[in-house]
Amino acid sequence: MTATTAGRSRRPNGAAPTERRNRDSAVIAAAITVMSQKGYAATSIQEVADRVGVLKGSLYHYFRSKEELLFRILEESHEQVVEIEHEVAALDLSAFEELLEYVRRSSTWYLSNIDRANIFFSERNQLTGDRLTEAQAWGRAFEKHIAKLLTSAQTDGDVRSDMDQRLLTRFVLGALNNIRFWPSRSGKSFSNDEMAAALVSLTRSAIAAP
Amino acid sequence: MTATTAGRSRRPNGAAPTERRNRDSAVIAAAITVMSQKGYAATSIQEVADRVGVLKGSLYHYFRSKEELLFRILEESHEQVVEIEHEVAALDLSAFEELLEYVRRSSTWYLSNIDRANIFFSERNQLTGDRLTEAQAWGRAFEKHIAKLLTSAQTDGDVRSDMDQRLLTRFVLGALNNIRFWPSRSGKSFSNDEMAAALVSLTRSAIAAP
Repeated sequence: MTATTAGRSRRPNGAAPTERRNRDSAVIAAAITVMSQKGYAATSIQEVADRVGVLKGSLYHYFRSKEELLFRILEESHEQVVEIEHEVAALDLSAFEELLEYVRRSSTWYLSNIDRANIFFSERNQLTGDRLTEAQAWGRAFEKHIAKLLTSAQTDGDVRSDMDQRLLTRFVLGALNNIRFWPSRSGKSFSNDEMAAALVSLTRSAIAAP
Repeated sequence: MTATTAGRSRRPNGAAPTERRNRDSAVIAAAITVMSQKGYAATSIQEVADRVGVLKGSLYHYFRSKEELLFRILEESHEQVVEIEHEVAALDLSAFEELLEYVRRSSTWYLSNIDRANIFFSERNQLTGDRLTEAQAWGRAFEKHIAKLLTSAQTDGDVRSDMDQRLLTRFVLGALNNIRFWPSRSGKSFSNDEMAAALVSLTRSAIAAP
Protein backbone atom coordinates (compact mmCIF):
# COMPACT_ATOMS: atom_id res chain seq x y z
CA MET A 1 0.00 0.00 0.00
CA THR A 2 2.22 2.85 -1.16
CA ALA A 3 0.88 6.39 -1.11
CA THR A 4 1.20 8.30 -4.36
CA THR A 5 3.76 11.07 -4.67
CA ALA A 6 0.91 13.51 -5.26
CA GLY A 7 -0.70 12.42 -2.00
CA ARG A 8 2.57 12.69 -0.07
CA SER A 9 3.45 16.16 -1.26
CA ARG A 10 0.29 17.58 0.26
CA ARG A 11 1.26 16.64 3.79
CA PRO A 12 2.96 19.00 6.22
CA ASN A 13 6.75 18.76 6.49
CA GLY A 14 6.95 18.87 10.27
CA ALA A 15 5.73 15.40 11.31
CA ALA A 16 7.84 12.26 11.11
CA PRO A 17 6.78 9.89 8.27
CA THR A 18 5.40 7.17 10.61
CA GLU A 19 3.43 9.66 12.65
CA ARG A 20 1.99 11.13 9.44
CA ARG A 21 1.00 7.72 8.14
CA ASN A 22 -0.72 6.85 11.42
CA ARG A 23 -2.61 10.13 11.39
CA ASP A 24 -3.62 9.60 7.77
CA SER A 25 -4.90 6.11 8.60
CA ALA A 26 -6.88 7.38 11.58
CA VAL A 27 -8.47 10.13 9.48
CA ILE A 28 -9.30 7.74 6.65
CA ALA A 29 -10.80 5.17 9.06
CA ALA A 30 -12.95 7.88 10.68
CA ALA A 31 -14.06 9.20 7.29
CA ILE A 32 -15.03 5.68 6.15
CA THR A 33 -17.17 5.24 9.26
CA VAL A 34 -18.93 8.59 8.90
CA MET A 35 -19.41 8.36 5.11
CA SER A 36 -20.78 4.82 5.24
CA GLN A 37 -23.31 5.86 7.90
CA LYS A 38 -24.46 9.16 6.38
CA GLY A 39 -23.34 9.10 2.77
CA TYR A 40 -20.71 11.40 1.29
CA ALA A 41 -23.04 14.35 0.70
CA ALA A 42 -24.15 14.53 4.34
CA THR A 43 -20.65 13.96 5.79
CA SER A 44 -18.94 17.00 7.31
CA ILE A 45 -15.21 17.42 7.87
CA GLN A 46 -16.14 18.61 11.36
CA GLU A 47 -17.60 15.19 12.21
CA VAL A 48 -14.55 13.39 10.89
CA ALA A 49 -12.30 15.68 12.96
CA ASP A 50 -14.43 15.10 16.09
CA ARG A 51 -14.16 11.36 15.62
CA VAL A 52 -10.35 11.49 15.25
CA GLY A 53 -10.16 13.89 18.19
CA VAL A 54 -8.42 16.75 16.40
CA LEU A 55 -9.47 20.27 15.48
CA LYS A 56 -11.04 20.70 12.07
CA GLY A 57 -8.26 23.13 11.12
CA SER A 58 -5.54 20.60 11.84
CA LEU A 59 -7.32 18.00 9.71
CA TYR A 60 -6.99 20.33 6.74
CA HIS A 61 -3.20 19.94 7.06
CA TYR A 62 -3.69 16.36 5.93
CA PHE A 63 -6.60 16.66 3.51
CA ARG A 64 -7.41 19.91 1.78
CA SER A 65 -11.06 19.09 1.14
CA LYS A 66 -13.77 16.51 1.70
CA GLU A 67 -13.35 15.48 -1.92
CA GLU A 68 -9.62 14.84 -1.41
CA LEU A 69 -10.52 12.65 1.55
CA LEU A 70 -12.99 10.64 -0.55
CA PHE A 71 -10.38 10.35 -3.29
CA ARG A 72 -7.79 9.00 -0.85
CA ILE A 73 -10.26 6.39 0.46
CA LEU A 74 -10.98 5.19 -3.07
CA GLU A 75 -7.31 5.35 -4.06
CA GLU A 76 -6.30 3.21 -1.08
CA SER A 77 -9.06 0.69 -1.88
CA HIS A 78 -7.88 0.55 -5.48
CA GLU A 79 -4.28 0.05 -4.37
CA GLN A 80 -5.29 -2.82 -2.10
CA VAL A 81 -7.17 -4.59 -4.88
CA VAL A 82 -4.26 -4.06 -7.32
CA GLU A 83 -1.97 -5.60 -4.71
CA ILE A 84 -4.21 -8.69 -4.66
CA GLU A 85 -3.94 -8.81 -8.47
CA HIS A 86 -0.12 -8.82 -8.24
CA GLU A 87 -0.01 -11.40 -5.45
CA VAL A 88 -2.22 -13.77 -7.41
CA ALA A 89 -0.25 -13.24 -10.65
CA ALA A 90 2.92 -14.21 -8.75
CA LEU A 91 1.43 -17.66 -8.00
CA ASP A 92 2.00 -18.59 -11.65
CA LEU A 93 -1.31 -20.42 -12.10
CA SER A 94 -3.17 -21.14 -15.34
CA ALA A 95 -5.33 -18.20 -16.48
CA PHE A 96 -8.49 -20.00 -15.31
CA GLU A 97 -7.12 -20.80 -11.84
CA GLU A 98 -5.62 -17.29 -11.57
CA LEU A 99 -9.03 -15.79 -12.33
CA LEU A 100 -10.76 -17.93 -9.72
CA GLU A 101 -8.11 -17.22 -7.09
CA TYR A 102 -8.45 -13.52 -7.89
CA VAL A 103 -12.22 -13.80 -7.42
CA ARG A 104 -11.68 -15.59 -4.12
CA ARG A 105 -9.23 -13.05 -2.69
CA SER A 106 -11.06 -9.96 -4.03
CA SER A 107 -14.38 -11.15 -2.65
CA THR A 108 -12.76 -11.86 0.73
CA TRP A 109 -11.35 -8.31 0.63
CA TYR A 110 -14.83 -6.88 -0.14
CA LEU A 111 -16.36 -8.87 2.70
CA SER A 112 -13.66 -7.75 5.15
CA ASN A 113 -13.95 -4.12 4.00
CA ILE A 114 -17.66 -3.69 3.36
CA ASP A 115 -17.85 -0.01 4.33
CA ARG A 116 -14.91 0.80 2.07
CA ALA A 117 -16.34 -1.29 -0.76
CA ASN A 118 -19.75 0.38 -0.41
CA ILE A 119 -18.15 3.83 -0.58
CA PHE A 120 -16.17 2.77 -3.66
CA PHE A 121 -19.32 1.70 -5.50
CA SER A 122 -21.80 4.28 -4.21
CA GLU A 123 -19.80 7.49 -3.99
CA ARG A 124 -17.23 7.30 -6.78
CA ASN A 125 -19.27 9.57 -9.02
CA GLN A 126 -19.26 12.32 -6.39
CA LEU A 127 -15.68 13.06 -7.45
CA THR A 128 -15.09 15.75 -10.05
CA GLY A 129 -12.55 16.63 -12.75
CA ASP A 130 -9.26 14.69 -12.84
CA ARG A 131 -10.10 12.78 -9.68
CA LEU A 132 -13.30 11.45 -11.26
CA THR A 133 -11.45 10.52 -14.45
CA GLU A 134 -8.83 8.63 -12.44
CA ALA A 135 -11.37 6.76 -10.30
CA GLN A 136 -13.35 5.74 -13.39
CA ALA A 137 -10.14 4.43 -14.94
CA TRP A 138 -9.63 2.20 -11.87
CA GLY A 139 -13.03 0.60 -12.47
CA ARG A 140 -12.17 -0.01 -16.12
CA ALA A 141 -8.75 -1.48 -15.22
CA PHE A 142 -10.45 -3.92 -12.84
CA GLU A 143 -12.84 -4.99 -15.61
CA LYS A 144 -9.99 -5.30 -18.13
CA HIS A 145 -8.00 -7.52 -15.81
CA ILE A 146 -10.90 -9.96 -15.57
CA ALA A 147 -11.48 -9.76 -19.34
CA LYS A 148 -7.81 -10.52 -20.03
CA LEU A 149 -7.81 -13.62 -17.80
CA LEU A 150 -11.09 -14.85 -19.33
CA THR A 151 -9.72 -14.45 -22.86
CA SER A 152 -6.58 -16.42 -21.99
CA ALA A 153 -8.61 -19.11 -20.23
CA GLN A 154 -10.84 -19.40 -23.30
CA THR A 155 -7.74 -19.79 -25.49
CA ASP A 156 -6.44 -22.48 -23.11
CA GLY A 157 -9.75 -24.32 -23.54
CA ASP A 158 -10.59 -24.06 -19.82
CA VAL A 159 -13.49 -21.61 -20.20
CA ARG A 160 -16.56 -22.22 -22.35
CA SER A 161 -16.14 -20.93 -25.89
CA ASP A 162 -19.87 -20.82 -26.71
CA MET A 163 -20.19 -17.36 -25.18
CA ASP A 164 -18.64 -13.98 -25.99
CA GLN A 165 -15.87 -13.08 -23.54
CA ARG A 166 -17.56 -9.71 -22.92
CA LEU A 167 -20.72 -11.41 -21.61
CA LEU A 168 -18.61 -13.69 -19.41
CA THR A 169 -16.79 -10.63 -18.05
CA ARG A 170 -20.06 -8.86 -17.21
CA PHE A 171 -21.29 -11.95 -15.36
CA VAL A 172 -18.10 -12.61 -13.37
CA LEU A 173 -17.65 -8.93 -12.50
CA GLY A 174 -21.31 -8.61 -11.52
CA ALA A 175 -21.29 -11.67 -9.27
CA LEU A 176 -18.04 -10.51 -7.63
CA ASN A 177 -19.15 -6.90 -7.10
CA ASN A 178 -22.41 -8.14 -5.62
CA ILE A 179 -20.87 -10.21 -2.85
CA ARG A 180 -20.78 -7.15 -0.58
CA PHE A 181 -24.59 -7.57 -0.26
CA TRP A 182 -24.45 -11.26 0.73
CA PRO A 183 -24.02 -10.73 4.49
CA SER A 184 -27.15 -8.55 4.72
CA ARG A 185 -29.42 -11.14 3.08
CA SER A 186 -31.92 -12.93 5.25
CA GLY A 187 -31.20 -16.33 6.72
CA LYS A 188 -28.19 -17.92 8.29
CA SER A 189 -24.90 -16.07 8.56
CA PHE A 190 -21.86 -17.48 6.83
CA SER A 191 -18.18 -16.75 7.38
CA ASN A 192 -16.35 -14.63 4.80
CA ASP A 193 -14.38 -17.72 3.74
CA GLU A 194 -17.57 -19.75 3.24
CA MET A 195 -19.12 -17.03 1.10
CA ALA A 196 -15.97 -16.53 -0.98
CA ALA A 197 -15.63 -20.30 -1.49
CA ALA A 198 -19.28 -20.52 -2.62
CA LEU A 199 -18.80 -17.67 -5.09
CA VAL A 200 -15.70 -19.33 -6.55
CA SER A 201 -17.37 -22.73 -6.84
CA LEU A 202 -20.46 -21.27 -8.56
CA THR A 203 -18.37 -19.08 -10.86
CA ARG A 204 -16.22 -22.07 -11.81
CA SER A 205 -19.28 -24.16 -12.72
CA ALA A 206 -20.85 -21.26 -14.61
CA ILE A 207 -17.94 -20.56 -16.93
CA ALA A 208 -15.90 -23.80 -17.16
CA ALA A 209 -15.62 -25.51 -20.54
CA PRO A 210 -17.91 -28.58 -20.60
CA MET B 1 -50.70 -3.54 -13.16
CA THR B 2 -53.49 -2.64 -10.77
CA ALA B 3 -53.18 0.44 -8.61
CA THR B 4 -53.75 -0.16 -4.92
CA THR B 5 -56.94 1.03 -3.28
CA ALA B 6 -54.85 3.25 -1.02
CA GLY B 7 -53.30 4.91 -4.09
CA ARG B 8 -56.66 5.40 -5.80
CA SER B 9 -58.40 6.97 -2.84
CA ARG B 10 -55.95 9.85 -2.83
CA ARG B 11 -56.94 11.07 -6.28
CA PRO B 12 -59.48 13.78 -6.99
CA ASN B 13 -63.03 12.66 -7.75
CA GLY B 14 -63.59 14.92 -10.74
CA ALA B 15 -61.53 13.25 -13.49
CA ALA B 16 -62.65 10.14 -15.41
CA PRO B 17 -60.72 6.98 -14.46
CA THR B 18 -58.85 6.70 -17.80
CA GLU B 19 -57.85 10.33 -17.73
CA ARG B 20 -56.62 9.91 -14.16
CA ARG B 21 -54.59 6.85 -15.06
CA ASN B 22 -52.97 8.62 -18.02
CA ARG B 23 -52.08 11.61 -15.87
CA ASP B 24 -50.63 9.32 -13.18
CA SER B 25 -48.52 7.54 -15.80
CA ALA B 26 -47.25 10.83 -17.24
CA VAL B 27 -46.30 12.08 -13.77
CA ILE B 28 -44.57 8.83 -12.86
CA ALA B 29 -42.66 8.73 -16.17
CA ALA B 30 -41.50 12.32 -15.65
CA ALA B 31 -40.48 11.63 -12.06
CA ILE B 32 -38.48 8.55 -13.14
CA THR B 33 -36.60 10.66 -15.70
CA VAL B 34 -35.80 13.46 -13.25
CA MET B 35 -34.93 11.16 -10.33
CA SER B 36 -32.67 8.94 -12.40
CA GLN B 37 -30.79 11.99 -13.69
CA LYS B 38 -30.43 13.91 -10.41
CA GLY B 39 -31.15 11.41 -7.66
CA TYR B 40 -34.15 11.54 -5.35
CA ALA B 41 -32.68 14.07 -2.89
CA ALA B 42 -32.02 16.66 -5.61
CA THR B 43 -35.34 16.14 -7.42
CA SER B 44 -37.94 18.86 -6.98
CA ILE B 45 -41.68 18.49 -7.52
CA GLN B 46 -41.44 21.72 -9.54
CA GLU B 47 -39.18 20.05 -12.10
CA VAL B 48 -41.49 17.05 -12.39
CA ALA B 49 -44.48 19.39 -12.90
CA ASP B 50 -42.56 21.39 -15.55
CA ARG B 51 -41.74 18.21 -17.43
CA VAL B 52 -45.40 17.06 -17.39
CA GLY B 53 -46.52 20.57 -18.36
CA VAL B 54 -48.79 21.17 -15.38
CA LEU B 55 -48.66 23.58 -12.45
CA LYS B 56 -46.97 22.32 -9.31
CA GLY B 57 -50.21 22.82 -7.38
CA SER B 58 -52.18 20.57 -9.71
CA LEU B 59 -49.57 17.84 -9.39
CA TYR B 60 -50.26 17.77 -5.65
CA HIS B 61 -53.80 16.60 -6.50
CA TYR B 62 -52.25 13.35 -7.67
CA PHE B 63 -49.30 12.95 -5.28
CA ARG B 64 -49.25 14.59 -1.90
CA SER B 65 -45.48 14.62 -1.53
CA LYS B 66 -42.23 13.74 -3.26
CA GLU B 67 -42.03 10.70 -1.02
CA GLU B 68 -45.44 9.49 -2.15
CA LEU B 69 -44.27 9.85 -5.74
CA LEU B 70 -41.17 7.77 -5.03
CA PHE B 71 -43.32 5.19 -3.25
CA ARG B 72 -45.66 4.91 -6.25
CA ILE B 73 -42.70 4.39 -8.62
CA LEU B 74 -41.36 1.60 -6.44
CA GLU B 75 -44.82 0.11 -5.90
CA GLU B 76 -45.47 -0.02 -9.65
CA SER B 77 -42.08 -1.63 -10.25
CA HIS B 78 -42.81 -4.19 -7.56
CA GLU B 79 -46.25 -4.92 -9.09
CA GLN B 80 -44.71 -5.47 -12.51
CA VAL B 81 -42.15 -7.93 -11.16
CA VAL B 82 -44.85 -9.78 -9.17
CA GLU B 83 -46.87 -10.04 -12.38
CA ILE B 84 -43.88 -11.72 -14.05
CA GLU B 85 -43.75 -14.14 -11.10
CA HIS B 86 -47.42 -15.07 -11.65
CA GLU B 87 -47.07 -15.39 -15.42
CA VAL B 88 -44.13 -17.75 -15.06
CA ALA B 89 -45.87 -19.80 -12.33
CA ALA B 90 -48.82 -20.29 -14.74
CA LEU B 91 -46.50 -22.04 -17.24
CA ASP B 92 -46.44 -25.05 -14.93
CA LEU B 93 -42.74 -25.81 -15.36
CA SER B 94 -40.47 -27.78 -13.02
CA ALA B 95 -39.11 -25.63 -10.18
CA PHE B 96 -35.69 -25.42 -11.89
CA GLU B 97 -37.10 -24.33 -15.24
CA GLU B 98 -39.52 -21.95 -13.51
CA LEU B 99 -36.60 -20.32 -11.69
CA LEU B 100 -34.60 -19.92 -14.91
CA GLU B 101 -37.60 -18.54 -16.81
CA TYR B 102 -38.21 -16.12 -13.95
CA VAL B 103 -34.55 -15.02 -14.13
CA ARG B 104 -34.89 -14.56 -17.90
CA ARG B 105 -38.06 -12.45 -17.75
CA SER B 106 -37.05 -10.43 -14.69
CA SER B 107 -33.67 -9.60 -16.18
CA THR B 108 -35.34 -8.58 -19.45
CA TRP B 109 -37.65 -6.33 -17.39
CA TYR B 110 -34.64 -4.74 -15.60
CA LEU B 111 -32.90 -4.14 -18.92
CA SER B 112 -36.02 -2.58 -20.47
CA ASN B 113 -36.62 -0.43 -17.37
CA ILE B 114 -33.12 0.51 -16.26
CA ASP B 115 -34.04 3.94 -14.83
CA ARG B 116 -36.87 2.40 -12.82
CA ALA B 117 -34.66 -0.47 -11.65
CA ASN B 118 -31.88 1.94 -10.64
CA ILE B 119 -34.35 4.01 -8.59
CA PHE B 120 -35.65 0.83 -6.95
CA PHE B 121 -32.18 -0.21 -5.83
CA SER B 122 -30.64 3.19 -5.10
CA GLU B 123 -33.45 5.20 -3.55
CA ARG B 124 -35.60 2.70 -1.66
CA ASN B 125 -34.05 3.65 1.67
CA GLN B 126 -35.06 7.29 1.20
CA LEU B 127 -38.58 6.22 2.17
CA THR B 128 -39.65 6.56 5.80
CA GLY B 129 -42.09 4.92 8.24
CA ASP B 130 -44.68 2.50 6.86
CA ARG B 131 -43.64 3.16 3.27
CA LEU B 132 -40.07 2.09 4.04
CA THR B 133 -41.29 -1.01 5.88
CA GLU B 134 -43.46 -1.98 2.90
CA ALA B 135 -40.73 -1.41 0.31
CA GLN B 136 -38.26 -3.46 2.35
CA ALA B 137 -40.84 -6.27 2.52
CA TRP B 138 -41.01 -6.28 -1.32
CA GLY B 139 -37.26 -6.90 -1.48
CA ARG B 140 -37.56 -9.77 1.00
CA ALA B 141 -40.52 -11.29 -0.89
CA PHE B 142 -38.47 -11.26 -4.11
CA GLU B 143 -35.63 -13.05 -2.31
CA LYS B 144 -38.03 -15.56 -0.72
CA HIS B 145 -39.54 -16.43 -4.10
CA ILE B 146 -36.11 -17.33 -5.47
CA ALA B 147 -35.26 -19.25 -2.28
CA LYS B 148 -38.50 -21.26 -2.52
CA LEU B 149 -37.86 -22.27 -6.15
CA LEU B 150 -34.24 -23.20 -5.36
CA THR B 151 -35.32 -25.37 -2.43
CA SER B 152 -37.87 -27.21 -4.60
CA ALA B 153 -35.36 -27.63 -7.41
CA GLN B 154 -32.85 -29.07 -4.94
CA THR B 155 -35.51 -31.52 -3.70
CA ASP B 156 -36.23 -32.50 -7.33
CA GLY B 157 -32.52 -33.24 -7.76
CA ASP B 158 -32.14 -30.59 -10.49
CA VAL B 159 -30.01 -28.17 -8.47
CA ARG B 160 -26.69 -29.08 -6.81
CA SER B 161 -27.13 -30.29 -3.27
CA ASP B 162 -23.51 -29.70 -2.19
CA MET B 163 -24.28 -26.07 -1.33
CA ASP B 164 -26.63 -24.43 1.18
CA GLN B 165 -29.75 -23.04 -0.49
CA ARG B 166 -29.13 -19.66 1.15
CA LEU B 167 -25.76 -19.31 -0.58
CA LEU B 168 -27.35 -20.31 -3.90
CA THR B 169 -30.06 -17.68 -3.33
CA ARG B 170 -27.50 -14.95 -2.66
CA PHE B 171 -25.65 -15.85 -5.85
CA VAL B 172 -28.70 -16.04 -8.13
CA LEU B 173 -30.22 -12.87 -6.69
CA GLY B 174 -26.90 -11.03 -6.93
CA ALA B 175 -26.29 -12.02 -10.54
CA LEU B 176 -29.87 -11.07 -11.47
CA ASN B 177 -29.84 -7.71 -9.66
CA ASN B 178 -26.52 -6.86 -11.27
CA ILE B 179 -27.69 -7.22 -14.87
CA ARG B 180 -28.82 -3.59 -14.88
CA PHE B 181 -25.10 -2.67 -15.02
CA TRP B 182 -24.30 -4.88 -18.01
CA PRO B 183 -25.22 -2.38 -20.74
CA SER B 184 -22.85 0.28 -19.33
CA ARG B 185 -19.82 -2.02 -19.33
CA SER B 186 -17.12 -1.38 -21.92
CA GLY B 187 -17.00 -3.30 -25.18
CA LYS B 188 -19.61 -4.42 -27.68
CA SER B 189 -23.29 -3.75 -27.09
CA PHE B 190 -25.65 -6.70 -26.82
CA SER B 191 -29.42 -6.83 -27.16
CA ASN B 192 -31.50 -7.28 -24.01
CA ASP B 193 -32.43 -10.78 -25.18
CA GLU B 194 -28.78 -11.73 -25.70
CA MET B 195 -27.86 -10.50 -22.22
CA ALA B 196 -30.81 -12.23 -20.55
CA ALA B 197 -30.06 -15.49 -22.41
CA ALA B 198 -26.40 -15.32 -21.31
CA LEU B 199 -27.41 -14.75 -17.69
CA VAL B 200 -29.78 -17.73 -17.78
CA SER B 201 -27.23 -20.02 -19.43
CA LEU B 202 -24.51 -19.08 -16.91
CA THR B 203 -26.89 -19.37 -13.94
CA ARG B 204 -28.04 -22.79 -15.18
CA SER B 205 -24.46 -24.07 -15.42
CA ALA B 206 -23.57 -22.55 -12.04
CA ILE B 207 -26.32 -24.22 -10.03
CA ALA B 208 -27.38 -27.36 -11.96
CA ALA B 209 -26.86 -30.74 -10.31
CA PRO B 210 -23.83 -32.47 -11.86
